[in-house]
Amino acid sequence: MTRAVAGDAADPKHSRAQLVDFRVEPASYRHWRLSVDGPVATLCMDVDEHGGLSDRYELKLNSYDLGVDIELYDATQRLRFEHPQVRTVILTSAKDKVFCAGANIRMLATAAHEAKVNFCKFTNETRNGMEDASANSGQAYIAAVNGTASGGGYELALACEHIMLIDDRSSAVSLPELPLLGVLPGTGGLTRLVDKRHVRRDVADYVCTRSDGITGKKAVAWRLVDEAVPRAQWAQAVADRAAALAERSTRAPIENGEPGIQLTPLGKKRAGSEIEYSYVHARLDRAKGAAEITVQGPRAPVPKTIETAHDQGAGFWPLAVTRELDDLILDLRTNEPALGTWLLRTSGDGQEVLRYDQLLLDNASDWLANEIVHYLKRTLKRLDVTSRSLIALIEPGSCFTGSLLELALAADRTYQLAGLFEDSDPDTASATVTLAGMNLGALRMGNGLTRLQTRFLGDDSALEAATATTGQALEADSAEELGLITFAPDDIDWAEEIRMALEERASFSPDALTGMEANFRFAGPETMETKIFGRLTAWQNWIFNRPNAAGPAGALTRFGTGQRADFDFTRV
Amino acid sequence: MTRAVAGDAADPKHSRAQLVDFRVEPASYRHWRLSVDGPVATLCMDVDEHGGLSDRYELKLNSYDLGVDIELYDATQRLRFEHPQVRTVILTSAKDKVFCAGANIRMLATAAHEAKVNFCKFTNETRNGMEDASANSGQAYIAAVNGTASGGGYELALACEHIMLIDDRSSAVSLPELPLLGVLPGTGGLTRLVDKRHVRRDVADYVCTRSDGITGKKAVAWRLVDEAVPRAQWAQAVADRAAALAERSTRAPIENGEPGIQLTPLGKKRAGSEIEYSYVHARLDRAKGAAEITVQGPRAPVPKTIETAHDQGAGFWPLAVTRELDDLILDLRTNEPALGTWLLRTSGDGQEVLRYDQLLLDNASDWLANEIVHYLKRTLKRLDVTSRSLIALIEPGSCFTGSLLELALAADRTYQLAGLFEDSDPDTASATVTLAGMNLGALRMGNGLTRLQTRFLGDDSALEAATATTGQALEADSAEELGLITFAPDDIDWAEEIRMALEERASFSPDALTGMEANFRFAGPETMETKIFGRLTAWQNWIFNRPNAAGPAGALTRFGTGQRADFDFTRV
Repeated sequence: MTRAVAGDAADPKHSRAQLVDFRVEPASYRHWRLSVDGPVATLCMDVDEHGGLSDRYELKLNSYDLGVDIELYDATQRLRFEHPQVRTVILTSAKDKVFCAGANIRMLATAAHEAKVNFCKFTNETRNGMEDASANSGQAYIAAVNGTASGGGYELALACEHIMLIDDRSSAVSLPELPLLGVLPGTGGLTRLVDKRHVRRDVADYVCTRSDGITGKKAVAWRLVDEAVPRAQWAQAVADRAAALAERSTRAPIENGEPGIQLTPLGKKRAGSEIEYSYVHARLDRAKGAAEITVQGPRAPVPKTIETAHDQGAGFWPLAVTRELDDLILDLRTNEPALGTWLLRTSGDGQEVLRYDQLLLDNASDWLANEIVHYLKRTLKRLDVTSRSLIALIEPGSCFTGSLLELALAADRTYQLAGLFEDSDPDTASATVTLAGMNLGALRMGNGLTRLQTRFLGDDSALEAATATTGQALEADSAEELGLITFAPDDIDWAEEIRMALEERASFSPDALTGMEANFRFAGPETMETKIFGRLTAWQNWIFNRPNAAGPAGALTRFGTGQRADFDFTRV
Repeated sequence: MTRAVAGDAADPKHSRAQLVDFRVEPASYRHWRLSVDGPVATLCMDVDEHGGLSDRYELKLNSYDLGVDIELYDATQRLRFEHPQVRTVILTSAKDKVFCAGANIRMLATAAHEAKVNFCKFTNETRNGMEDASANSGQAYIAAVNGTASGGGYELALACEHIMLIDDRSSAVSLPELPLLGVLPGTGGLTRLVDKRHVRRDVADYVCTRSDGITGKKAVAWRLVDEAVPRAQWAQAVADRAAALAERSTRAPIENGEPGIQLTPLGKKRAGSEIEYSYVHARLDRAKGAAEITVQGPRAPVPKTIETAHDQGAGFWPLAVTRELDDLILDLRTNEPALGTWLLRTSGDGQEVLRYDQLLLDNASDWLANEIVHYLKRTLKRLDVTSRSLIALIEPGSCFTGSLLELALAADRTYQLAGLFEDSDPDTASATVTLAGMNLGALRMGNGLTRLQTRFLGDDSALEAATATTGQALEADSAEELGLITFAPDDIDWAEEIRMALEERASFSPDALTGMEANFRFAGPETMETKIFGRLTAWQNWIFNRPNAAGPAGALTRFGTGQRADFDFTRV
């Protein structure tokens, strides 16, 4: 099997001039303005038409590309860490009569398939993160829809807890992807209509086949928005609603004037085949189609109190390592689509990891501890929906304990060395894994279960047996017997087994691997989130890949050309 | 938009010499032998290599195509109706050392995309039906795997309640689709491994990346099968297990010697643009891309007792109409893929429908009544996963009551005429819909909810208000207010609204419609069944449509040619 990688050069539709960088900060935002007034923040969308990641398109009418969404993601993160006093976020537009026109169509029409899918994944994660802020941080998002919200623009509003629509006969919400582009509203819109807002399925069908929007009172009656407000009362109504939601917020009171944690610029070196942060390192093996990722445990002993953690700010190990892992995942997904396997290693003192975990768990009511745990949870969730094979390697010197053990539990397979490497230092201890409090509920997957529960779905006795070992460092044989790892080769077989597993993975159809992994990673119950990433995404991927949308005569390709699409009407 | 329908002629891969007929009977089976011995039936697979639906392929090693599965489906139906005394079904193979090699690969490789997807849908429905027989009819399926079960062969076993594997070092189970063909096990295999058999996700990952199979004790240890039995004890062990499961069966005792209901040949005329049965009729409007389906209510008054229904046998209206609807759905799906919209009408006396419903509900412990209701349930479920737009038209003279109201509740949209048509007989009554007992639990969707619960998901007061009208004939305005229908045009608007809805539907991308409908039809909870049809199917469709599988250098295309696949290794 030849390793034919269709890179950027091979695909004329996919010329990426440079690597996408996810590290931005408010001072350099081109598309958003973030302002904070006591408990109420305003996130104002004002997309720079000429600020797209590519010059293939102009970002008219507050349409967005990945670059716009990277800033939105950054803002949602800073709101949680830098502005702990904020309890309501008003999401609105600075454009006249336009809230947001959704994902830029020309961008979608000209992007490679993998770029489209990756873009949708990230935008979905950001919108899920907004809902997570409402649910777990008492930061409620209000969509103040002060103009037309179409497609992804309305989907952005759907991710907010409360949707207000200006009632002026022209401002409307719509999901016109199907009639206009021959694709689906791919950012959770279909799922959120019926499962979150409980729009009746036949009403949803009607709404999603209209190319025009629904205005004012009808939008309220159909549950598409929560309230329609005349222009004259708009500013006051939005302010009142924001104040009311702030009042209702479950966010722990922040001492007046207590500063948040500054998310200082992330130190990162990316050169050749290395990506290096402070605690996270990746070696990119393009020949093998793999990325070797190592996550380091803490270098300093755990602070005695959570206050010291506050003082350490972005340098506090759990926050630092999560930010780095988050950035690495996004970087590799976006910039290295041909690295199909990620090897996950850890390195450091597992006991120290557990002490940091415990500090966070013991201070669950502290806003910063709460934010860090939820941030780690969201970052691990990114792994669960990453279309790469994840293989954890548990070797001597590793620290797969507590929060870092989740990396192994998120992997498709785990290998733990039985015994030691022959040439190792005689003082080295064998590789172990240790379950701890952090594995028992704080870091739930999108399906609402812990990774441990998902692993032992339907096998309660295995789950209990594993859980009973909490706190014990388990060598390979015990971990294998308990079902916590997949394989426990010894020194003689280790290198060969890993080599073969990697080569084998690299020889398989990447599409089939993605489909298989997406099905196995989420056994058990489904939630709105797993539906969005599982069912809706899969359908959208299929549609994106069909000639009726993306072919030369497809609706997405022909949009705006004046030519209508030529469909093959065969139903599949 | 030109209506470019890629029919058979346009696609050289898809030459269908004649229409597929789903009406078969045991005497003419080419691939299966059904024998019954008291409470134990044996369904023996013995595929005729030269009996495929097409001569493009030979059905070696008990591999199957749609024709083989049509016989299997027929057998499962006859077991429930014609053999009420059967409590265990042994599914086994007549071939030496081969249980079943799964779907024929050459068939898959040469089939059109829509044919592959339609084939998988039907095979999934048949396997779900086997599980339904275990759950609701006390007919447990035992897979007596007396040779190699690979791919769809093992998936067939996975749909059984109990899997026995002959322990002879060569008989093995495997899901080698990913390594060999670059596609997924598409008949529920991935979902059933983790969600039904609770195989650990990393073990499942390993199993599904192996091209060879898992034998004997290891297959038991990994939960892939329930028991491994040496060849010497095989026949006795299978017989013992069958007897034990029959003993355990919840099937109501059948009086010794009571005959089942003969599923007599279905009267059907199919000519030109008409398909006609006794109670079901379809007009195929190829120009408009629509099928107009009319389901007729009973012509005879309801029998006084369920015994009379037994005497009427296959002529008993609820059974007759269900069989006809079932056959029509399968026919249209398979033979008319370009008819993208199905218009659903009913005609007859709605009160009589309710009386038939009530007879069935009042005799829930009668085996035949039970079978008919579950058969109707399964047939309506077919509608839920049919990739066609479903529009119900509720007009004067219709009988959308109880069981037939489910047709409207299954539709993507419903139109009910307000008032009468201007030129109608003055004695005509307005169109009504009537909720009844049959809508409240007996005919649940794959998501475990009634269609009414799904419709009003998250809106309990609307659900209660609707349910409170049980038994009342609701005219259009009431039905609209209650949310039971979508639109209530009057005579002046009716024809134009329907025409526009149809034309609009016919102008949209059929792929986007399929994706949208698949997402809206199943709001709320997910089950193994919705996962199989929602998530797994969507991923498989995507993979089937990717060059890595189905392109000229794809794995599915090149299988068996000696040439390896050329993959684009970009991860999507």
